[in-house]
Amino acid sequence: MKVFEVTLAPKQIASQLKCEIVLVRKTVLTNVAELAEANEKSVCFFENPKFLDALNACKAGLIFVPADFDAKQKPDTNLILIDKPYINFMMLVKTWLELSREKPVEKIAETAVVSKKATIGRNTNLGHNCIIEDNVIIGNNTTIESNSVIRKNVRIGENCHIFPNTTIYEDCVLKNNVVIHSGCVIGADGFGYLLHEGIQNKIPQVGNVIIEDDVEVGACSCIDRATIGSTIIGKGTKIDNLVQVGHNCKIGENSILCAQVGLAGSTEIGDVVFLAGQVGVAGHLKIDDGAMVGAQSGVSNSIPKKAKYFGTPAIDAGLKKRILASEKQIPNVVKYYKKIMKNEKVKK
Amino acid sequence: MKVFEVTLAPKQIASQLKCEIVLVRKTVLTNVAELAEANEKSVCFFENPKFLDALNACKAGLIFVPADFDAKQKPDTNLILIDKPYINFMMLVKTWLELSREKPVEKIAETAVVSKKATIGRNTNLGHNCIIEDNVIIGNNTTIESNSVIRKNVRIGENCHIFPNTTIYEDCVLKNNVVIHSGCVIGADGFGYLLHEGIQNKIPQVGNVIIEDDVEVGACSCIDRATIGSTIIGKGTKIDNLVQVGHNCKIGENSILCAQVGLAGSTEIGDVVFLAGQVGVAGHLKIDDGAMVGAQSGVSNSIPKKAKYFGTPAIDAGLKKRILASEKQIPNVVKYYKKIMKNEKVKK
Amino acid sequence: MKVFEVTLAPKQIASQLKCEIVLVRKTVLTNVAELAEANEKSVCFFENPKFLDALNACKAGLIFVPADFDAKQKPDTNLILIDKPYINFMMLVKTWLELSREKPVEKIAETAVVSKKATIGRNTNLGHNCIIEDNVIIGNNTTIESNSVIRKNVRIGENCHIFPNTTIYEDCVLKNNVVIHSGCVIGADGFGYLLHEGIQNKIPQVGNVIIEDDVEVGACSCIDRATIGSTIIGKGTKIDNLVQVGHNCKIGENSILCAQVGLAGSTEIGDVVFLAGQVGVAGHLKIDDGAMVGAQSGVSNSIPKKAKYFGTPAIDAGLKKRILASEKQIPNVVKYYKKIMKNEKVKK
Repeated sequence: MKVFEVTLAPKQIASQLKCEIVLVRKTVLTNVAELAEANEKSVCFFENPKFLDALNACKAGLIFVPADFDAKQKPDTNLILIDKPYINFMMLVKTWLELSREKPVEKIAETAVVSKKATIGRNTNLGHNCIIEDNVIIGNNTTIESNSVIRKNVRIGENCHIFPNTTIYEDCVLKNNVVIHSGCVIGADGFGYLLHEGIQNKIPQVGNVIIEDDVEVGACSCIDRATIGSTIIGKGTKIDNLVQVGHNCKIGENSILCAQVGLAGSTEIGDVVFLAGQVGVAGHLKIDDGAMVGAQSGVSNSIPKKAKYFGTPAIDAGLKKRILASEKQIPNVVKYYKKIMKNEKVKK
Repeated sequence: MKVFEVTLAPKQIASQLKCEIVLVRKTVLTNVAELAEANEKSVCFFENPKFLDALNACKAGLIFVPADFDAKQKPDTNLILIDKPYINFMMLVKTWLELSREKPVEKIAETAVVSKKATIGRNTNLGHNCIIEDNVIIGNNTTIESNSVIRKNVRIGENCHIFPNTTIYEDCVLKNNVVIHSGCVIGADGFGYLLHEGIQNKIPQVGNVIIEDDVEVGACSCIDRATIGSTIIGKGTKIDNLVQVGHNCKIGENSILCAQVGLAGSTEIGDVVFLAGQVGVAGHLKIDDGAMVGAQSGVSNSIPKKAKYFGTPAIDAGLKKRILASEKQIPNVVKYYKKIMKNEKVKK
Repeated sequence: MKVFEVTLAPKQIASQLKCEIVLVRKTVLTNVAELAEANEKSVCFFENPKFLDALNACKAGLIFVPADFDAKQKPDTNLILIDKPYINFMMLVKTWLELSREKPVEKIAETAVVSKKATIGRNTNLGHNCIIEDNVIIGNNTTIESNSVIRKNVRIGENCHIFPNTTIYEDCVLKNNVVIHSGCVIGADGFGYLLHEGIQNKIPQVGNVIIEDDVEVGACSCIDRATIGSTIIGKGTKIDNLVQVGHNCKIGENSILCAQVGLAGSTEIGDVVFLAGQVGVAGHLKIDDGAMVGAQSGVSNSIPKKAKYFGTPAIDAGLKKRILASEKQIPNVVKYYKKIMKNEKVKK
């Protein structure tokens, strides 16, 4: 249950939507909740019939239900009848969060360590014990939370939010509206060694990372700096938790990298690409715009535009599914094959 | 080698156990060690015959050996002859650790930043530079180590141990005896976006995480907050390092998630489920009580009670093993098939 | 682009190399860059014909090109003609970094929390808010960056570099020239539980981690302490980001563990072993010297010296590739098999 500081009335909510409203009692709404945990001040949604029992038991102050829902099924309850109740409910949550958001004001914790050579914008919020090193530039309305470390020469744009315990290595660039969750490491050295006479020799990693506008990076993800040049995360791309992006990768716009994805070095990902959880991509490949790769796939070749790939090594997803559908017969086929082979031997 | 502050005599140790003891010399025991690193004050165990050479060379002050061990094989050495020497040795380690444990006393580092609006229990231990935000409640005998960040409204129960550099996002709940290792991020935003006109739009994530009693979470693991409602880790469940638990997952009691496991959103895991290393589970599935899933499996369907699954996609482990056993013949079978096809074509 | 504080002239660079130099204009060199981002003060390299367009457009002050490159192709540009331009260019970067490196001087941040019982070497650099607990020993010329936590009894050698937000648990040992990137957790408890009457009982983890000379560990990697004894990372081994090393593993010298690799407990890895990204290795196995394991493989058996393995479960890579090459025919084979089976039934 998320309780907001701003309260809303059912009519206020309905007035923003193209919907039918059934109002049976007055109420002040203070929170959004799941059906099962709702109280009389909650707004909920109901869309999946699986949750019908929870709906019947629910005491919420207002429930978003599908447009064709029969209001008699849930009497004594305020209802909003609307197409796509889940999405519309979530839009309400978004609006409500914005209504409750405090206006940004400058707030620099006494324990923040800010270099005199750093440039800090207006209404910036620097948390306890965060470290802002030499020549860092931070834009307006940006928040760096507690215990994060921003190393020298980093540039961070406006309206960014860096959560606690994050590390951003020197020279990296974050543009505007970038969100980095806790535990992330942006700009650590790429993984490059040359084996020479039995010894692994480090290839210096002197590039950086550039994160374009509107990117969000989940917790404990790592984006390595380029060897030379930049590792680039394109505008609007979203990266989940525990993801590894190798040095010199270039990711396009509005792509999705689900949790635990790993990209080896110098790979290019296009726009609106979807990489499901735990996918691995080898180095120096290109996954073109709109491609989709199924969970746990191991990509060892480039993937053309809008293709759907699956498996290790990843191949056309339709073909892979046909192979997998046949898989259960393999022991029988092999048994039969062995019988034939034995017979053929006997004949000879 | 682990050296304890409390010393023990062989007889003291034997008196707690149902065992036979062979005492050939007096000694004061100060540490537990592997056979290979032991000194005259060490307690060791021997169970796996693979380590017989190490046993012969070992100078330990006391060795746990199997009940049927022939003491003449290791003369001049104090021995405890006992069933399951490894487990009994480990029980001793546990007891010894408890004997050596300091009584909890209140210890709040001067550099800890504790909100005046936080409520801190008795005998609480707050490390250097840890951050306790507004409205946090921390129970008795709980330790929050250095540089950890506990954001607003978090509730932590009694006897919990939060290791250094951990982040717990707002509104999350940890009950009693919960252990969170370093680098963990509890309650970061779930990964939810809607692609609309080529742009990824964030679905707000306003739920929380609830971690029940006796849960232990390994280093650098991430448990995301629910979109609405709660992500729940059930009582006694143990989670290894670098594990990803997606938003709105519900995990039952006493389950095991090995390292690098990833659960997508809204998946349910029952009680005493075992997920081996690097397993991935798709969203909205149910893995029922007692199920076991083999390492690296990709689970794309729900799994019934006590079933053993393996592979990507995960299927019955026995069937998968039969398929894999046949796998090596596939090239021969395909070659033979191609020959037949060619002949059939010729016939036509 | 990496800008150095020390400037170089083309002749200075050439004088260190066995190469031919084409000098067409005077310039002061200040940085290394990719062809596409270079300015007149940049040094670049060209080796892969894929970047010919970038070479043609490039305005760099000096470009390393292959020994057989036709200098007329890039007139008006200073060139170094040399075998292996990439490697030689990288050697220059290494040298340039060393020239630019400040001489180590003692620098202990006021906000560093250093126990009076700790022993700190000469020219040690302790960052803001780093925590050095009781009985820690740190060698000469070692840097511990901001917000890192070094727990009691840890020993760190000379010339080590611990990046920000790292945690090293008690009793661990890092020898000389060890580099640990941000977010790493060294020495958290191994993952060991015994299921007894439906409850997971923790096996105490009282060993440590020993990291030998010249090891580098990437961001957010976890190396667990041993149950008893030590988890050991051998000299010169390099570990990428988000890698999991289970308790009691022993890794040899100069091995490579790519990103997101996971090793279960007590596994031994030899010298100069190569584990590609996302490889998982089960417990108690031995991967012998010089072995190579392909990306995402799941190793369930020991691997002999210099063998190349691939797949889950990992088998000889050549055989696995033959199986995969046949894979696409499986649906046809199974279809044909079913037809035969039907016919045989009809005959009966």
